[in-house]
Amino acid sequence: MALRTGEEYIASLRDDRVVYYAGERVKDVTTHPYISLRARENARQFGLGAKESPERLDLRTVLLPDGERVHRWALPCRTREDLLKFVEMEETMEGDAHGAMTAGLTALKILGRKMDAKFGTAYTPRIEKYADWFARQDLHGSFAMTDAKGDRSKSPSQQVDPDLWVRVVERRPDGIVISGAKTSVSSAPVCNELLVLPTHAMGPADKDWSVACAVPANAPGVTMICNYIGSPWGERHRFDRPVHFNDSTPDATVIFDKVFVPNDRVFMDGEFEYTREMIGYFSTFHRAGILVNEPRETKKLIGAAQLMARYNGIDGVGNIRNGIGEMVQTVQMLDVLRHTALSRVQFVEGVCVPDAVACNLAGLTVTSARPGFLTFLCELAGGPVLTAPSGLDLANPETSALVKKYYVGKEGVSGEDRLRLIKYIYDIAASDSAAYSVALGVTAAGSPSARRVAVARGFDVEACVNTVKQELQ
Amino acid sequence: MALRTGEEYIASLRDDRVVYYAGERVKDVTTHPYISLRARENARQFGLGAKESPERLDLRTVLLPDGERVHRWALPCRTREDLLKFVEMEETMEGDAHGAMTAGLTALKILGRKMDAKFGTAYTPRIEKYADWFARQDLHGSFAMTDAKGDRSKSPSQQVDPDLWVRVVERRPDGIVISGAKTSVSSAPVCNELLVLPTHAMGPADKDWSVACAVPANAPGVTMICNYIGSPWGERHRFDRPVHFNDSTPDATVIFDKVFVPNDRVFMDGEFEYTREMIGYFSTFHRAGILVNEPRETKKLIGAAQLMARYNGIDGVGNIRNGIGEMVQTVQMLDVLRHTALSRVQFVEGVCVPDAVACNLAGLTVTSARPGFLTFLCELAGGPVLTAPSGLDLANPETSALVKKYYVGKEGVSGEDRLRLIKYIYDIAASDSAAYSVALGVTAAGSPSARRVAVARGFDVEACVNTVKQELQ
Amino acid sequence: MALRTGEEYIASLRDDRVVYYAGERVKDVTTHPYISLRARENARQFGLGAKESPERLDLRTVLLPDGERVHRWALPCRTREDLLKFVEMEETMEGDAHGAMTAGLTALKILGRKMDAKFGTAYTPRIEKYADWFARQDLHGSFAMTDAKGDRSKSPSQQVDPDLWVRVVERRPDGIVISGAKTSVSSAPVCNELLVLPTHAMGPADKDWSVACAVPANAPGVTMICNYIGSPWGERHRFDRPVHFNDSTPDATVIFDKVFVPNDRVFMDGEFEYTREMIGYFSTFHRAGILVNEPRETKKLIGAAQLMARYNGIDGVGNIRNGIGEMVQTVQMLDVLRHTALSRVQFVEGVCVPDAVACNLAGLTVTSARPGFLTFLCELAGGPVLTAPSGLDLANPETSALVKKYYVGKEGVSGEDRLRLIKYIYDIAASDSAAYSVALGVTAAGSPSARRVAVARGFDVEACVNTVKQELQ
Amino acid sequence: MALRTGEEYIASLRDDRVVYYAGERVKDVTTHPYISLRARENARQFGLGAKESPERLDLRTVLLPDGERVHRWALPCRTREDLLKFVEMEETMEGDAHGAMTAGLTALKILGRKMDAKFGTAYTPRIEKYADWFARQDLHGSFAMTDAKGDRSKSPSQQVDPDLWVRVVERRPDGIVISGAKTSVSSAPVCNELLVLPTHAMGPADKDWSVACAVPANAPGVTMICNYIGSPWGERHRFDRPVHFNDSTPDATVIFDKVFVPNDRVFMDGEFEYTREMIGYFSTFHRAGILVNEPRETKKLIGAAQLMARYNGIDGVGNIRNGIGEMVQTVQMLDVLRHTALSRVQFVEGVCVPDAVACNLAGLTVTSARPGFLTFLCELAGGPVLTAPSGLDLANPETSALVKKYYVGKEGVSGEDRLRLIKYIYDIAASDSAAYSVALGVTAAGSPSARRVAVARGFDVEACVNTVKQELQ
Repeated sequence: MALRTGEEYIASLRDDRVVYYAGERVKDVTTHPYISLRARENARQFGLGAKESPERLDLRTVLLPDGERVHRWALPCRTREDLLKFVEMEETMEGDAHGAMTAGLTALKILGRKMDAKFGTAYTPRIEKYADWFARQDLHGSFAMTDAKGDRSKSPSQQVDPDLWVRVVERRPDGIVISGAKTSVSSAPVCNELLVLPTHAMGPADKDWSVACAVPANAPGVTMICNYIGSPWGERHRFDRPVHFNDSTPDATVIFDKVFVPNDRVFMDGEFEYTREMIGYFSTFHRAGILVNEPRETKKLIGAAQLMARYNGIDGVGNIRNGIGEMVQTVQMLDVLRHTALSRVQFVEGVCVPDAVACNLAGLTVTSARPGFLTFLCELAGGPVLTAPSGLDLANPETSALVKKYYVGKEGVSGEDRLRLIKYIYDIAASDSAAYSVALGVTAAGSPSARRVAVARGFDVEACVNTVKQELQ
Repeated sequence: MALRTGEEYIASLRDDRVVYYAGERVKDVTTHPYISLRARENARQFGLGAKESPERLDLRTVLLPDGERVHRWALPCRTREDLLKFVEMEETMEGDAHGAMTAGLTALKILGRKMDAKFGTAYTPRIEKYADWFARQDLHGSFAMTDAKGDRSKSPSQQVDPDLWVRVVERRPDGIVISGAKTSVSSAPVCNELLVLPTHAMGPADKDWSVACAVPANAPGVTMICNYIGSPWGERHRFDRPVHFNDSTPDATVIFDKVFVPNDRVFMDGEFEYTREMIGYFSTFHRAGILVNEPRETKKLIGAAQLMARYNGIDGVGNIRNGIGEMVQTVQMLDVLRHTALSRVQFVEGVCVPDAVACNLAGLTVTSARPGFLTFLCELAGGPVLTAPSGLDLANPETSALVKKYYVGKEGVSGEDRLRLIKYIYDIAASDSAAYSVALGVTAAGSPSARRVAVARGFDVEACVNTVKQELQ
Repeated sequence: MALRTGEEYIASLRDDRVVYYAGERVKDVTTHPYISLRARENARQFGLGAKESPERLDLRTVLLPDGERVHRWALPCRTREDLLKFVEMEETMEGDAHGAMTAGLTALKILGRKMDAKFGTAYTPRIEKYADWFARQDLHGSFAMTDAKGDRSKSPSQQVDPDLWVRVVERRPDGIVISGAKTSVSSAPVCNELLVLPTHAMGPADKDWSVACAVPANAPGVTMICNYIGSPWGERHRFDRPVHFNDSTPDATVIFDKVFVPNDRVFMDGEFEYTREMIGYFSTFHRAGILVNEPRETKKLIGAAQLMARYNGIDGVGNIRNGIGEMVQTVQMLDVLRHTALSRVQFVEGVCVPDAVACNLAGLTVTSARPGFLTFLCELAGGPVLTAPSGLDLANPETSALVKKYYVGKEGVSGEDRLRLIKYIYDIAASDSAAYSVALGVTAAGSPSARRVAVARGFDVEACVNTVKQELQ
Repeated sequence: MALRTGEEYIASLRDDRVVYYAGERVKDVTTHPYISLRARENARQFGLGAKESPERLDLRTVLLPDGERVHRWALPCRTREDLLKFVEMEETMEGDAHGAMTAGLTALKILGRKMDAKFGTAYTPRIEKYADWFARQDLHGSFAMTDAKGDRSKSPSQQVDPDLWVRVVERRPDGIVISGAKTSVSSAPVCNELLVLPTHAMGPADKDWSVACAVPANAPGVTMICNYIGSPWGERHRFDRPVHFNDSTPDATVIFDKVFVPNDRVFMDGEFEYTREMIGYFSTFHRAGILVNEPRETKKLIGAAQLMARYNGIDGVGNIRNGIGEMVQTVQMLDVLRHTALSRVQFVEGVCVPDAVACNLAGLTVTSARPGFLTFLCELAGGPVLTAPSGLDLANPETSALVKKYYVGKEGVSGEDRLRLIKYIYDIAASDSAAYSVALGVTAAGSPSARRVAVARGFDVEACVNTVKQELQ
């Protein structure tokens, strides 16, 4: 099968999947005013399929041994070059990132071999075949990991309602039946396949909850309920929200109600002993995510700050220079972290992964510094960041001249240019997108607490103790 | 004239004022779906007028010497009891705060006496009469201070366009004519009167820009262009935005195009020597603002954090207790600052003002701590803060049971209760309102830089130097 | 008995007490080159006894009901005036502070009444009589609280060696016999009386360790081993260490080896139920300590910073002004905390105590800010803070002219003046005294962890939770 | 000439140099109780000269093209391997580091070529010859850069006293005569050669102060006045100061009083145009210094913290684990910075230099984190860090048993071991050495302000601005 085109991807989403949004059933996600935005972005990743330019094919695809061309994001990185290209590819694409799905499939391949060796199971051929099919069919996958959970201090088997973590409710000769819900499944409404993975290390009592499998997005019994965080402002307000006017992040709670999964899509069923290792490999392979957008995003904040100060005629003021200097220092730190992350690579079971310590320190650095930078940008823009007229008032002939007259900056800076920058700062630093980005930084792909643990993992405190003991002798 | 009722206030806004919003002329602000929300809130302050309950009349009104009852917010605080009641009153009211307007009128009264004494002008009777009329007519005033400015490194007279700061363009026997624009005028579209004040200390070249006066909201030549920061989500999404579903903050850029101001409404015209003092008195009298909402708001963040942790079954976890402990420490600090602010009061020209240092330290404390608290709340709520279904999905019979089943917390915490709290946290910590509150904290009523200057004002560094010199002898 | 003179106090220390210092038995603490320094300082507190000036007598003494004059530090504060005078008194005296001793005696008085009421014991007359005798004899007391402890995760009765916490090893008709050690007993070698108090809340198994009593410094069985943190530089280096050239803090580990305590000096013996309350009252009454030196000490740091910058000709540089601005902000915060602490007073069992929250916040503020201020001072002084010649080289005729020539500052600042200031900064910011002050801040009278707990004590988190719950209904 | 032995180095210091210490002329630095300590440390670097073990010779020496073996520290690093070995060498040696001297000589070589090309001077053969001689004679050099300065806001030629910056006072056919003083010259009293370099970028008026040259330590007219920061405690207190009992850092103010410098030792005389470049090269080549001791030193702090917590039985307590976790995070960051610094190397005029951004970020990281870590260590050790008995009391038979009995930790931790660790923590975290290390971090080899400037150098803010401008189009 050939690389799909964007249109083929879009068409594949019209499959009677069960999706709800803001209290209503969504008939067709590809025409829904809000969800379709993300589908369109993803479609751009597929583009013209095999007819894309050689440069893009080089960046975004690889050849399988038998000569078939598949998208790079379907395969694990085997070399440092792979890794650099993978990161570069993700940086240059709109729409969903693919790191988590790739990490999940790769982790399953390794664990399949281990489980088969220990238990005599036959997971390996299944997962190899599924991964190969997924790549050659050129599918879009979502990663369903986080269970509903209930009481966070208790294990799955201790919950009042056993469905709070996805579990096997029936085992049949031809497959298993699962029930439960996964929350925060990114882009579920616009994916083809859902990869279900356990989200915690489990114990002997949790065998029925130790399940990994693949489920089509439109499988009978699958219900998706979208998140609701308001509507994008849309094209009409492109001036007022130059960056995020059409953002859409259709995450869903995915409910599995007695969903049948045939055997060849079941990759773990009861092997609780390997759930901890599963999480470990997953987070190891998924580590590069933080490097995709940073320090690039912080550089934009610097540019906006410098430009705003300049427009206002105060770019030489000491405290403003100090504030920008702090941002520069953070970017330089992020550059150092990225350098180490991509040069001090490790090879884990044949997969090339960036340095864990550097990746997690980058995450912590961004998370702690970003809110202060956004606040500084607001302070630079001043009251107008919240109180300036809309771009529609700039366009309205009755008010256009007034807006242009009064929103000028220092000599030579037109009211239109300055208002445009004020709106840019509003968009990235004072809007719902600003709040979203800060909240996302601490709730997705590693909370600060989890990152701190990861940074310390493998550090040899005892070696430090022994050094001191030696000095004391 | 009696105290007005809310309806009388609403009616008074239908006066053909010129207001633009999102590219369109607003015919009637009291029926505009968005601007009217704030008008309604303000109307609740007026309520039934003289027919309000004795308790509310006691809290919100005072008797003039001649027995007429006027709203407390129209008069300066003369005693510590006044001050405590003023702060309590503002805390218990929705809608616009009145501190800035009161501070402006009070500052003008003092300056009027000083200018008259020095220059032989006759401002005092004018401002006394205007303030008396304003109080007895029970009007709602907006405070127009921040000029458009242009190049922030230059004075008004140095700007390319002399209108960038509001100025006197003509002096006539019966009054003055002003042109220019004031930005960030809070609630201008729903006020009766605009109080125009200079926003900077000015020099001899800036005489024409040294102007203070009062202008009716519907005066010929006045055009208001509202800000645009999206629409409130409205009643339909009350579950999803329990606090801010209907927030409206109609700030405006107010343009004065050759507006005639009769002499009895002109309170400063050319006395540049007093502009610095004007700013000083204003910020002194307006100081209590920061005490109105803090530490109350931070206590809500603590409550939400504790409740979320409890619902999730993890309120005993060390790092969560530490996080809440830090919030408690901040609230305790704010309580101390409030105590000092309201007990170490000063009397300035007969007006009782809270302690400057404590007020500004409170502002700095809130500004620096709040973003971290919001992030912590998001981390506690986890992914669902951004990805949970809407309250409409909870209401939809097709999905209601699923949402209720899977969003439960620990035993005994229903899915509905937990989702409600998640939405509460979304609303205050991850929504556009969260970003707005953080941005407002650094752009309105004193930037952090200005607060730091104010904290140091009056501190005697030389005394410290002398102590060291003595020790060195 | 009259107020003692300094000489009488000194003489009273020649009583064959058993003191060790740096590996040697100290024959006479009043002639020991190092320990005697503190004795001399304390002697200055006694001064001329009853022959002191009326002003000093007014500040430092009070009249008992029967007309006898005793030192203020021997009695608890009953009114806010008492409290202000107590704090002022301690601020103006060199040598040992008396807050801890007073707090201990006062706590015992209250507990005595409670224990007697519950158990029918007769502690009250004993402690009243002892406290009265202590005051009228005008003794100097040390406060022995912190046990040796051993394993900090275990209670006294669980330790391998039962002596690790001071305990009753024998009960006789006429008294008790105690063994064990108290560490970190400030000024033990130069006190008359040791007040032994339990340092933790204890349980039923710890009855033998629940003991409070008074022991003369020279009681048979008492051995004191002094700390060793180097010798003071002495008079010869007064130029090089203008503040701390003669500092002496003779803290001791006090070992009790089967020390007999007669009944009238036993104030608790086995009443473990009251140990928790004991700690509570003690820390409540001892709360004012932090207010004694702050913000005064921080103001000296400001003075030194400003003067150094001025001497170097760079007091106008932006970053230096910012650095000093931060120090000023901290001092202003400390002033606010002090204001609240001394105005939001509480009366606990008739004793006037400053506000707990404000006192502990002051402690935390100083502890966290001080190291940064010291570093800033060093940065201002530059390399010479560590590398400048000694005052002895300034005095040496062979080098004097060179030092004076090359250590000048900007025009008009002599080399001698500038070197003097550099040494001052060395002394307070880069010497052993600097390190000592920082370490003391976190090890004496409340670690930061303990202060954080104290700040949160009494804060009603549930009230916050309920506010949120109400908003959610 | 062969590699010198330590004894030969010591002998070379007996050359009638003029050194003052604490008000007295030092006859012989090699027998001075305090200064000689550093001479001995340096002597260990020379060791047995050519008779050192092959491993040490491999690490510490290199072969010149003609086969002569010289110490590695005399030559610049030409390759990444050189750089790694240089850093490793410095890490493994006691006594003076050599980075600054090497950086100075290397910078001079490059500048010599440039000045000769521009001005037709003949500096190159002089500096090449001197550097070669210095290496083959195996001398120990000190780096004299920081002038006395006077008014820091003025240039050398603007000072009241022209000698405040070292200058040429006479030019003779055979050489120049210089006067002035250099402060903070590390180890001047125990060096053979002083390398005089300008410390600031200079202008046309400062030609006479634009001077670089080499001066023997005992040249006529050279007077050294040592710093005075107390005496080391010495061997007797080795238990109490296990790390720093014998530390000596004999920095000096070096006065040049009409010192004649023959032409072949003059490397810059008046070429003010190159002073800025001089500073630039110097700081570039000297950049590796910060990598020598970090993160190694911070790892010791971690070891001490973990061991102290363990000895006290509280290594499992949450806040203690958090505290150690923060230290680990910092060390991991330092490791990342070191990795990037030594892998993202640059080649500047043929010299291999570590990454500037990473080196300076490492400096800033250490400087800001270290004081907090020291405080944390003190808090862990508790009161005894300041109040514990001396090791001499442990040795004294009269007190030994008491100290051993009462200073035990949890079961199995002897009093001797625990006291030893307490003293270790005292030494590194609460003693004069602790204060010295913190002060040194901000006064030597780059203040925090200078480091911040260096981190931002070369960062392209305009590129950030342009990115934003593009997004806005």
